[in-house]
Amino acid sequence: MIFDSICRRGVRARRPAAALPLPALPILTGAALLLLAPSAAWAAVGDETQFVLNSFSFLIWGALVMWMCAGFTMLESGSVRTKNASVICLKNIGLYSIAGLMFYFIGYNIMYVGVPEGGWFGSLTLFYGTTADEVTLLTGEDAAAKAAASAAVIETGKATMSDWFFQMVFVATTASIVSGTLAERVKLWSFFAFITVLTAIVYPVVGAWTWGGGWLAEMGFKDFAGSTIVHSTGGWAALAGAIVVGARKGKFRPDGTVRSTPPSNVPAVTLGVFILWLGWFGFNGGSQLALGGAADAVALSNILANTNLAAAAGVMAAIALSRPLLGRVDLLASLNGAIGGLVSITAAPDIAEHYWAVIIGGVGGAIVILGMKLLERLKIDDVVGAVPAHLFAGIWGTLAVSIAGGGNLLVQLIGIAAIGAFVFAASWAIWTLLKVTVGVRIAPTAEDLGQDVAELGIEAYPEFVVIPEHDD
Amino acid sequence: MIFDSICRRGVRARRPAAALPLPALPILTGAALLLLAPSAAWAAVGDETQFVLNSFSFLIWGALVMWMCAGFTMLESGSVRTKNASVICLKNIGLYSIAGLMFYFIGYNIMYVGVPEGGWFGSLTLFYGTTADEVTLLTGEDAAAKAAASAAVIETGKATMSDWFFQMVFVATTASIVSGTLAERVKLWSFFAFITVLTAIVYPVVGAWTWGGGWLAEMGFKDFAGSTIVHSTGGWAALAGAIVVGARKGKFRPDGTVRSTPPSNVPAVTLGVFILWLGWFGFNGGSQLALGGAADAVALSNILANTNLAAAAGVMAAIALSRPLLGRVDLLASLNGAIGGLVSITAAPDIAEHYWAVIIGGVGGAIVILGMKLLERLKIDDVVGAVPAHLFAGIWGTLAVSIAGGGNLLVQLIGIAAIGAFVFAASWAIWTLLKVTVGVRIAPTAEDLGQDVAELGIEAYPEFVVIPEHDD
Amino acid sequence: MIFDSICRRGVRARRPAAALPLPALPILTGAALLLLAPSAAWAAVGDETQFVLNSFSFLIWGALVMWMCAGFTMLESGSVRTKNASVICLKNIGLYSIAGLMFYFIGYNIMYVGVPEGGWFGSLTLFYGTTADEVTLLTGEDAAAKAAASAAVIETGKATMSDWFFQMVFVATTASIVSGTLAERVKLWSFFAFITVLTAIVYPVVGAWTWGGGWLAEMGFKDFAGSTIVHSTGGWAALAGAIVVGARKGKFRPDGTVRSTPPSNVPAVTLGVFILWLGWFGFNGGSQLALGGAADAVALSNILANTNLAAAAGVMAAIALSRPLLGRVDLLASLNGAIGGLVSITAAPDIAEHYWAVIIGGVGGAIVILGMKLLERLKIDDVVGAVPAHLFAGIWGTLAVSIAGGGNLLVQLIGIAAIGAFVFAASWAIWTLLKVTVGVRIAPTAEDLGQDVAELGIEAYPEFVVIPEHDD
Repeated sequence: MIFDSICRRGVRARRPAAALPLPALPILTGAALLLLAPSAAWAAVGDETQFVLNSFSFLIWGALVMWMCAGFTMLESGSVRTKNASVICLKNIGLYSIAGLMFYFIGYNIMYVGVPEGGWFGSLTLFYGTTADEVTLLTGEDAAAKAAASAAVIETGKATMSDWFFQMVFVATTASIVSGTLAERVKLWSFFAFITVLTAIVYPVVGAWTWGGGWLAEMGFKDFAGSTIVHSTGGWAALAGAIVVGARKGKFRPDGTVRSTPPSNVPAVTLGVFILWLGWFGFNGGSQLALGGAADAVALSNILANTNLAAAAGVMAAIALSRPLLGRVDLLASLNGAIGGLVSITAAPDIAEHYWAVIIGGVGGAIVILGMKLLERLKIDDVVGAVPAHLFAGIWGTLAVSIAGGGNLLVQLIGIAAIGAFVFAASWAIWTLLKVTVGVRIAPTAEDLGQDVAELGIEAYPEFVVIPEHDD
Repeated sequence: MIFDSICRRGVRARRPAAALPLPALPILTGAALLLLAPSAAWAAVGDETQFVLNSFSFLIWGALVMWMCAGFTMLESGSVRTKNASVICLKNIGLYSIAGLMFYFIGYNIMYVGVPEGGWFGSLTLFYGTTADEVTLLTGEDAAAKAAASAAVIETGKATMSDWFFQMVFVATTASIVSGTLAERVKLWSFFAFITVLTAIVYPVVGAWTWGGGWLAEMGFKDFAGSTIVHSTGGWAALAGAIVVGARKGKFRPDGTVRSTPPSNVPAVTLGVFILWLGWFGFNGGSQLALGGAADAVALSNILANTNLAAAAGVMAAIALSRPLLGRVDLLASLNGAIGGLVSITAAPDIAEHYWAVIIGGVGGAIVILGMKLLERLKIDDVVGAVPAHLFAGIWGTLAVSIAGGGNLLVQLIGIAAIGAFVFAASWAIWTLLKVTVGVRIAPTAEDLGQDVAELGIEAYPEFVVIPEHDD
Repeated sequence: MIFDSICRRGVRARRPAAALPLPALPILTGAALLLLAPSAAWAAVGDETQFVLNSFSFLIWGALVMWMCAGFTMLESGSVRTKNASVICLKNIGLYSIAGLMFYFIGYNIMYVGVPEGGWFGSLTLFYGTTADEVTLLTGEDAAAKAAASAAVIETGKATMSDWFFQMVFVATTASIVSGTLAERVKLWSFFAFITVLTAIVYPVVGAWTWGGGWLAEMGFKDFAGSTIVHSTGGWAALAGAIVVGARKGKFRPDGTVRSTPPSNVPAVTLGVFILWLGWFGFNGGSQLALGGAADAVALSNILANTNLAAAAGVMAAIALSRPLLGRVDLLASLNGAIGGLVSITAAPDIAEHYWAVIIGGVGGAIVILGMKLLERLKIDDVVGAVPAHLFAGIWGTLAVSIAGGGNLLVQLIGIAAIGAFVFAASWAIWTLLKVTVGVRIAPTAEDLGQDVAELGIEAYPEFVVIPEHDD
């Protein structure tokens, strides 16, 4: 409606829907009165409208989650040294493509189709897509068949491929986490091979246990949008890779000190974090899985508000802590603090007590900084700090459900441990298999030269004069 | 529906909703006929659907407004010299975080809760969030209580936190304007301190006068999406800061000439402007505050079209004027022209006469260029031209409401003056207080060295060889 | 609703809308029973809700298509040499502005208003916008007139300017294609002049033949979202320009070898491709032109899934083929493969057999690589490979409709040929006219110096030390 008051608080946002231009009423029978009575019923969201809104919600929020891939790409290409910035771009566009194809041909069915109640994985059949009813609805000639198909389709609550699309972008997120940790030394083809298995099998199995309705779901494990299921899974896979592939040459000096490897393009890293932050609204918001009624809309609103509060608290906690812990206000710590806050709130972004989002996110931001120090202690080389941000903060977020959202702490711990054990073991096995066969690591000379020249023959910034590398 | 004609003009976009597969009709009583009559009523948007669409509109357009923070960050980090590009990134992610937390804990209540009619500010209580009815709707066990809560919630027209989310991102925009003007010399911590007060108190008070229903609203002041309330507020705060903090070292030479400080990364600046342009669709579009009916949808469509036309006209006006005024086709002037056009149309983006959008935006683009020259004359150092783009064009846009949209010119002038006086005075006071206590400006040696190294110890582009600074 | 099961497969996404809290039923008359019967009718999407959803769909997907302009800008500014990176930014923001204004004042009417059935173009009148009914709906005082206007507006299926907005961003896409091909040597003003005619007349005429309901539409030519209508049109215009303007100085050496001109900023190119990929969800998805029912939602879901599958397949095909054909895993080929896949699926993104999307996109990715080799053979200098990606893949995609989607192959060929002949001839004429009058090409010295310094006096990266150009 036209906006005829300046007051923005939505007081005029609602228009009475029931203002019907009824013809002058003749004498009404009792039956007619009855039928006029449920005017509230008119106001409810109709079945088909729910179907449209649910499907659209998957798609538009899913598109924002796809956008997170660009965020990871910017974050990672800005974080690595210039000599490796092209390869990380190729890895990211490649992993997103692989994830999309694998999850279509294999992953989705393992994760969602025919998972036995309390079971371990779903169908191993190859193909999945638009249902027969949906095809009839779209292209059917017979009106009756079409009407029946329409009813059957609407009954499912959402378009099949809208659901697929939303779940697919989640797989890609898991894969994105791995590329950052292993940047600057993992072989391109081995990386792609790992991602293929991760997105076709490993992640879908974890998903089958939980969102697919398997044994952890039956136990009552709670992880709203995937602090553990997505982020820790990616983190465990990255951690296993970091251990098997090993640290970058020269990162940990023989004298026990750690060589600083500052990001080569800080504005790119910052852009990446903003992209991730935006995409996270889709990640958590779309995980409401519905937009068909007032309760969904309220939940979605709480989710976006909490997601933002947690990220903001993560940033501020990281800024505050970076001074005492790292000796300075640290931009990169602050940026990682945002991610820590976001990952932390992901397991329960729908809580109605918003101060909890501030607390959970703030702790998440702190955990990232402490985790980065811890990994350095352990001589595990994580180029972008993805393990602290996604794994450590993911564990915290999954536990925090018990505090803020009422999940059973023991069940949460079982879920974290089971998924961690499975993903870490499977990833370790795959990385090791790759190591002993095709190798997982570029040659030391290639590492010195940089992957861009050595593996691709394309420099990221070929015209710019770059300072020759030296150990500072 | 399936798309069985190539014609794209939406002629097939509408499906008759009332095509009910009615059973063969028996004899109808008069009452039954009556009840079949208001088939148009079925077609109206139901209450709950309105609630869902209104809330969703706040969230999705709000997410685009959040994205504007990334736009400001790119614009600013590309505009400053490389030696200050990291700090400006930290300032931007920090200000967004501070704005979100402050507006949650303090600002929203001051701006919107319990503002007396014609009053000056709202509630000073600390906490705000999901209502009790919303909690019952989400988690209630008792069906009757839940149904009652549902009705009460739907009656409010939108989810509480969806409204909060949308208003929150507006605060952040105001804060973003300040960081650009004061780049390259303002102390990080003083900047954060200023932003804290700006987003917790100054902006919310302005908001209470207007969108919150206070005295300016009562007078009839019109500012649809905030040419004055958001953009001029940010501009006044930035101007006060520029005066108190002073110009960058060496910007204005003793001989009266102005040192040119070209942007260090033009593609980043351009990306920033495209991000802002996209985000502005959310900024102006979401300010319709509703999506619950045909009139809202028409208004929203006009808003997006006008926003785009004004921005385009701003670009073309700036390109055309930059030749005679600046002696060349100026990319940066053109980019700022887009922003000038966008700010100008923000006060009345819903006008139905679209040529007005072209005129308003074109004038806005011209004003930015003239304003940039004026500030240089006045020896006020505004690194990105935010004061011309947001303050000067904002004033123009607010006045243009009287021409294009029918607002009372005197009232518009009163609003502009009152908000200007309050924000400028308050900002001046805060900046001055900071100056005499902790200081607002980095040391001259730090300014030479660059804030990145001096304040953060992180260079933005540490591997690239940079031309040593010299006065050209 | 609250999410009380962990299962994410949307099984709980649907809430029974018909659960009415009916009062205890008295004796019902037959008539009353009849009226309770069509409860399915309540569930259908109401007329006004359809109107809102259709309009919103145009706007939100259209906003994503606008975002593609940022993608082209990043892709192109990263692809050119640093000395031309500022000018390409200006060209892109300028072309988007010109396209928006021209399509408002001239183009839309030619394309959509009053195109005779089977005709060649529409109205040449100057002005277009919000209808009288819409104005009455927004601002009318008389309740009866307003109600009538509301009904008339809702009957049209979508807000007028929402349609305009969506069609406008398509014009801009066409224009964006041209700037990449002709980068680094075409004169700024001649380029703008060409874009003015392209967006005001050439593209709208093509559009009138097809989506506007003209002679190709009548024939049954199928091009869902514009593989030919948008992408090939841009490609033909670019090809004509490349021939008339000629190759960059030194690109093709006298000895027949081709000088390599690697992109100056690979992460920017990658970001550009991710932006395009995201924007394409809006490009293809919004082309469903409606979101008013279950069939639309199913189609939209298929469209987004197919778009993603085709792009992913394009990437993987390009990666796989770049090794044997180009001698290495080629990042840029892979990125162009994504675009080839996206362009290819654009003519029929709504197919229900998703493996077709994989095949079509994969072939599209391969075509891009082969096309890039072909153009080099023909000594046609296309800086970013836009002709292979948009024209060659666009032709393939339009033909593929006959295989996957059932279009008549002969009609598809006629459409491709007719549009190609018209656009190429018209573009050739315009470029040639510009050449013989104002000139289309910067001076050789300016080309050596770079357009940024020569035409704008603004370097893209003024502080960075750049390697002096040399023929490698």
